[in-house]
Amino acid sequence: MERFVLGLDLGGTKINAAVLDDAGNLISGARNKTEAELGAESVLERIVQTGAKALEGAGITPNHLYAVGIGSPGPLDWRTGVIIESAHLNFDHFPLGPRLAERFGRPVFVDNDVNAGTYGEFKKGAARGASHVLGMFVGTGIGGGIVVKGELYHGFSKNAGEVGHMVVLAGGPRCNCGSRGCLESLASRTAIVRDLRKAVKDGRKTSLTKQHGKRLEEVSSGDLKEAYQHEDKLVQKTIKRAAKYIGIGIGSLVNVLGPEVVVLGGGVIEALADEMLPLIERSAARVAFKFSMKGVRIVRAELGDDAGVIGAAIIASERFESQGRRQQPEAASEAGR
Amino acid sequence: MERFVLGLDLGGTKINAAVLDDAGNLISGARNKTEAELGAESVLERIVQTGAKALEGAGITPNHLYAVGIGSPGPLDWRTGVIIESAHLNFDHFPLGPRLAERFGRPVFVDNDVNAGTYGEFKKGAARGASHVLGMFVGTGIGGGIVVKGELYHGFSKNAGEVGHMVVLAGGPRCNCGSRGCLESLASRTAIVRDLRKAVKDGRKTSLTKQHGKRLEEVSSGDLKEAYQHEDKLVQKTIKRAAKYIGIGIGSLVNVLGPEVVVLGGGVIEALADEMLPLIERSAARVAFKFSMKGVRIVRAELGDDAGVIGAAIIASERFESQGRRQQPEAASEAGR
Repeated sequence: MERFVLGLDLGGTKINAAVLDDAGNLISGARNKTEAELGAESVLERIVQTGAKALEGAGITPNHLYAVGIGSPGPLDWRTGVIIESAHLNFDHFPLGPRLAERFGRPVFVDNDVNAGTYGEFKKGAARGASHVLGMFVGTGIGGGIVVKGELYHGFSKNAGEVGHMVVLAGGPRCNCGSRGCLESLASRTAIVRDLRKAVKDGRKTSLTKQHGKRLEEVSSGDLKEAYQHEDKLVQKTIKRAAKYIGIGIGSLVNVLGPEVVVLGGGVIEALADEMLPLIERSAARVAFKFSMKGVRIVRAELGDDAGVIGAAIIASERFESQGRRQQPEAASEAGR
Repeated sequence: MERFVLGLDLGGTKINAAVLDDAGNLISGARNKTEAELGAESVLERIVQTGAKALEGAGITPNHLYAVGIGSPGPLDWRTGVIIESAHLNFDHFPLGPRLAERFGRPVFVDNDVNAGTYGEFKKGAARGASHVLGMFVGTGIGGGIVVKGELYHGFSKNAGEVGHMVVLAGGPRCNCGSRGCLESLASRTAIVRDLRKAVKDGRKTSLTKQHGKRLEEVSSGDLKEAYQHEDKLVQKTIKRAAKYIGIGIGSLVNVLGPEVVVLGGGVIEALADEMLPLIERSAARVAFKFSMKGVRIVRAELGDDAGVIGAAIIASERFESQGRRQQPEAASEAGR
């Protein structure tokens, strides 16, 4: 009966769900808006609904699941399933894992959303076969995940991998986190749009103001791509600078962490990989030691929006199994009584 | 018979050796100059001599050793014992491990010198009991070592942990490694002296010029300490800036790696820990997320110069044992024939 696993990906704006069979194949999927402003209980309800829709698509009920996995923004405690806080989601020590376990009647395993995406790319995407992986996802912010010897790495803080918040330019722009000069404050879409806005204010021209006005508020990664391709000099310069900083961050991490594969994903990379990847590679190679860079691959993510649900599902299935293994000796000794 | 292990620490200027018993107690030690300028074969000879002197001090011969461990500057391949290159030591793909094994007639295990120091502090020093440790050693350069789940971390590059070469100030001072704005280029003794020299050239005053002239060539960490304590304003300002950058580097690494204990060692820290540590802590806490900094201890190394030999000896004894374990099944099956 229990041959399926449900993967969930909770984002600030949307929820993604997918059912995987026990071979790791994606059977069905569902999506919904998060509507985070309605509060934690409402978000919980929408997660359950989105999961239920994915189960319906696969023609199964929760009884057919052996486990549920969910990737969530953090910080969080992956052992207890509690989301410590999330500004976007209005979560404050919210027991997401236990609450979902109650609703689905199955064991639920929680991890950071970017960890789940990195793990998905590691198991089924662009980083297959490597054993040391660094995932970096560039969108509104910059998040990261680390795989060490084939395992997701959490560190003592349980929340390691915050590569967007390593300082690359001390004293640089103020970051959302309160610090200055973090990679996120230099190369996220938020940073790119802020730099464009400032340049426009200083009298520079960009095609983007026609559609978006001088505040450039709703500029998407796709808009940036289009402007770049239409030879918008200001956009090109700004994107190139962001790519340089991403490369500097990756070069530093190659020296410190020594990953074999660096997987780049997120909206900005998905839209602008062709333009940015060669610049990122060159910039990383300038920072990293030659011997540390040798054989390292910097690649674009392959699974797009599905990386998170696939990763969350595989995390759940693996943790469920290893729990089973740990519990087996006890079970065996009970049976022997 | 085989109840001892020999630990060696190969530095650019000196060689350190120590004999440990099987409980990890330091029995005897010996020191010698490296005289690296005489070439690899001469350095090898001096390592063997220093080791022999330590054995003599313990009243034993190589036959009483089960293994030898050595920490060496890198990059190196810890699996084969080959030093890929070392500018200071004129090593070029030098098979240090195999050559020493030949001389001592015992298995030799090689690792990076800073890894060995970090591991020594982890096993016997300031980071005892933690399972995620970051070691940072600030001297002429800045080196690092990483312990993950109780094991030294090497990464895909086999040379991870180069925390001195993460870029903290993009476009900053030129670093020895060829890049710009690495932590080493901002906070090593070399960087501190360079900043002081530049300030003197610009007309600023420091007590250090009396003894060392305007080029400040032979300024030691002890000299810096003395000037700091005698209210030398320029030295104080320069040391404080270095401490700020070290803290920024540590804060970034707390976000990315999530260590439980950060051990700080090396000549600069040994001399100036009282002055620098509070500044380093404050600066790190400004960069790191609160939830990642929670419970993290930033401490000074306890073992001083012995960290390297103790770490190298313990690495050797552990690898020797785990090799034995791996080989036992074969041996057992041979015996069963």
